[in-house]
Amino acid sequence: MNFADRLIRESVRKNSKICVGLDPQLDLLPPELLVKYGKTPSGIGRALFEFNRGIIDSVHDVAVAVKPQIAFYEQFGIEGMRAFKKTIKYAKKKGLLVILDAKRGDIGSTASAYSRAYLGGKEAAFPVDAITINPYLGADGILPFLEHCKAHGKGVFILVKTSNPSARELQDQRLESGVPVSEHLAAMVRKWGLELGGTLGYSSVGAVVGATYPEDAKKLRKIMPRAIFLVPGYGAQGGTAGDMRHFFNEDGHGAIVNASRSIIYAYRTSGKPFDVAAREEAIRMRDLINAALSARDAPAGERP
Amino acid sequence: MNFADRLIRESVRKNSKICVGLDPQLDLLPPELLVKYGKTPSGIGRALFEFNRGIIDSVHDVAVAVKPQIAFYEQFGIEGMRAFKKTIKYAKKKGLLVILDAKRGDIGSTASAYSRAYLGGKEAAFPVDAITINPYLGADGILPFLEHCKAHGKGVFILVKTSNPSARELQDQRLESGVPVSEHLAAMVRKWGLELGGTLGYSSVGAVVGATYPEDAKKLRKIMPRAIFLVPGYGAQGGTAGDMRHFFNEDGHGAIVNASRSIIYAYRTSGKPFDVAAREEAIRMRDLINAALSARDAPAGERP
Repeated sequence: MNFADRLIRESVRKNSKICVGLDPQLDLLPPELLVKYGKTPSGIGRALFEFNRGIIDSVHDVAVAVKPQIAFYEQFGIEGMRAFKKTIKYAKKKGLLVILDAKRGDIGSTASAYSRAYLGGKEAAFPVDAITINPYLGADGILPFLEHCKAHGKGVFILVKTSNPSARELQDQRLESGVPVSEHLAAMVRKWGLELGGTLGYSSVGAVVGATYPEDAKKLRKIMPRAIFLVPGYGAQGGTAGDMRHFFNEDGHGAIVNASRSIIYAYRTSGKPFDVAAREEAIRMRDLINAALSARDAPAGERP
Repeated sequence: MNFADRLIRESVRKNSKICVGLDPQLDLLPPELLVKYGKTPSGIGRALFEFNRGIIDSVHDVAVAVKPQIAFYEQFGIEGMRAFKKTIKYAKKKGLLVILDAKRGDIGSTASAYSRAYLGGKEAAFPVDAITINPYLGADGILPFLEHCKAHGKGVFILVKTSNPSARELQDQRLESGVPVSEHLAAMVRKWGLELGGTLGYSSVGAVVGATYPEDAKKLRKIMPRAIFLVPGYGAQGGTAGDMRHFFNEDGHGAIVNASRSIIYAYRTSGKPFDVAAREEAIRMRDLINAALSARDAPAGERP
């Protein structure tokens, strides 16, 4: 089934617009996990997976998707990649979509190799549902991924406006035509998405639009009405629930909001077990975003 | 030692400006390797490494560096990554610099995790000498890598103008200031490189500039006089030895030219064993580029 359709159906079924980032950092993990398995490569791999499994178990019915950031697994080498592979398998088993944050960007046979690795069918080494990709190389770096999206019901989220402060250095630069780079790319994303539309009105070619730039989101929403926005930067990076209304369409769809640190490391401020704290924080985030979207639909006088 | 210094010393010692891309594709490998080990994941991993070892053995004194493209290992999962790890270790043992073509691009703690994985000191999971990185996210995606460059004598090559046809779609767009995106980035690369200058006049912050765009190289050379250019797209993609003079400075340094398919798969047209064919083709490429650079230095009347 088309990826956009799958994502929206799960979002409706769970009444949720949230995605939980699985970004395990050794210095932020519950220390008892590292004590339990030891700081050898295979011990670290086990600790990463046990942590992720705990998070997945506690958010699987609250979140639509998880978003592992592959850098946090690559840094632990072969054992890290093993933990990554086990994590994506487990997340799927628990009914979560898996959006891989890898920001890959290359051309031709190289792009095909990346795409095969993550979006391929049975031959995929690390099969996920969607992947983030970087558009700096133009269509040559995008189209090979779309082939696998079509063949296997997968999706991509193309970086358009990232959540970080220095996103401005290139993405906000105005072209001679007067539009900023991010909007120039947004028009390309819309075009690339035309062939991957689902039955529910959205395309499997989505865009990354940072929660920290709600004013940009308003404009980008108009340029890419059928793209699903993957929205990083909520929570720890500063995006708020109130801002989120700019990322969604009037139909209440069109975005999935990610939080990583504020959920998976919630135990560090709450003092509760990490899985309990993560669930509470995920529920809070889900409800805040749902409330913000409902408020938008209410008559102006009744908005909070 | 500073990466730029290391690269130039090796280039002088070997009288070579070339880099060999290690991009193993199953359908292009010598079939006997796959027959020998079988098409299981571990068999494929062994075949990849045996192929790479053969290439490394035959070009180690001809090339300055090898450039594994990590996508071709990721696509084979854990066993592919194992073959990658063995390959980089073996290449170093044979006196080659290893430039990882990974085009990573992310921010903050994620960028640090990537950097630690590849450019870290003893804690690096896959230690290489330099890595290609993508500038779409601005300084937030670059500076974390430079920390490891400083601490461990490593280098980066930032994508400025890639070799593919659709590089134009974003990289050639003119900004309001009149300069194209690639030149805007080149100015940033120069600035980022200031803190990483070596004793031989070059910086460990290099740039990727495609062999297929010699006219751009001329301009970019002026904007980034101290950056070493990693030049993909020679050979199979169309860049010629004659074009290469635009990528080097007057001192004969400032670039390293990569070829992948035209060297490692030379056996497919020559009919010789793959390692013999690769060596012959690497020597031919080295000599052609050296000749083109010598011709440039000759009085105009004597140029070929």
